[in-house]
Amino acid sequence: MNSSRCAACKHLRRRCLSDCIFAPYFPSNKPRRFEYVHKIYGASNVGKILQDLPVRCRGEAAETLWYEAYCRIKDPVYGCAGMVSVLHQQLNVAECQLATVKAEVAALRPAYLCDSSCFH
Amino acid sequence: MNSSRCAACKHLRRRCLSDCIFAPYFPSNKPRRFEYVHKIYGASNVGKILQDLPVRCRGEAAETLWYEAYCRIKDPVYGCAGMVSVLHQQLNVAECQLATVKAEVAALRPAYLCDSSCFH
Repeated sequence: MNSSRCAACKHLRRRCLSDCIFAPYFPSNKPRRFEYVHKIYGASNVGKILQDLPVRCRGEAAETLWYEAYCRIKDPVYGCAGMVSVLHQQLNVAECQLATVKAEVAALRPAYLCDSSCFH
Repeated sequence: MNSSRCAACKHLRRRCLSDCIFAPYFPSNKPRRFEYVHKIYGASNVGKILQDLPVRCRGEAAETLWYEAYCRIKDPVYGCAGMVSVLHQQLNVAECQLATVKAEVAALRPAYLCDSSCFH
């Protein structure tokens, strides 16, 4: 019986019923996934979030909850929001560089056109 | 006495003690902030996360917890991780565009140099 319990039911030391909300998304061979979401959100909050979603969305939701819990454990101050902030900065840098290089192309193009006309 | 309770203690209908872990970060004039983190993480998990951090980091942690809770309420499937995914895609697009435009500059530069040499 024990071997068929999902990671959540194993962790919570309870029977894993056939309609267990966690079982499809927290398999027993990935115990860390449940430990992370349990530590950050608590089992009942994770269960509530999954329960409120259509079945087809629950897998993605479990995945993103796990990812956010993992980020929060790795970085308890900034969590996943810290990643959002870093990516915003990287995007700003890339967009500034793009604007600069586009301006460079615009400045070079007339010379290119002039040069082309020399040869034709 | 009631008016001096923080948003957390008001929501949890309890006395707000002088050493309340929530009071500095969840003031009574911003009740939604606490409602969001309470709904997603539960008060005790938020309290534990804050308690485990040095006091100087707690403000930032409360801010990012609130942001992630807000994202999860707005988008229960993808939450803040959905934002990370969107930003990754935008960054990829910007970096591809940058590479393309840089290649364009590299292709135009010899023509520009040749053109400059025509005039000097």
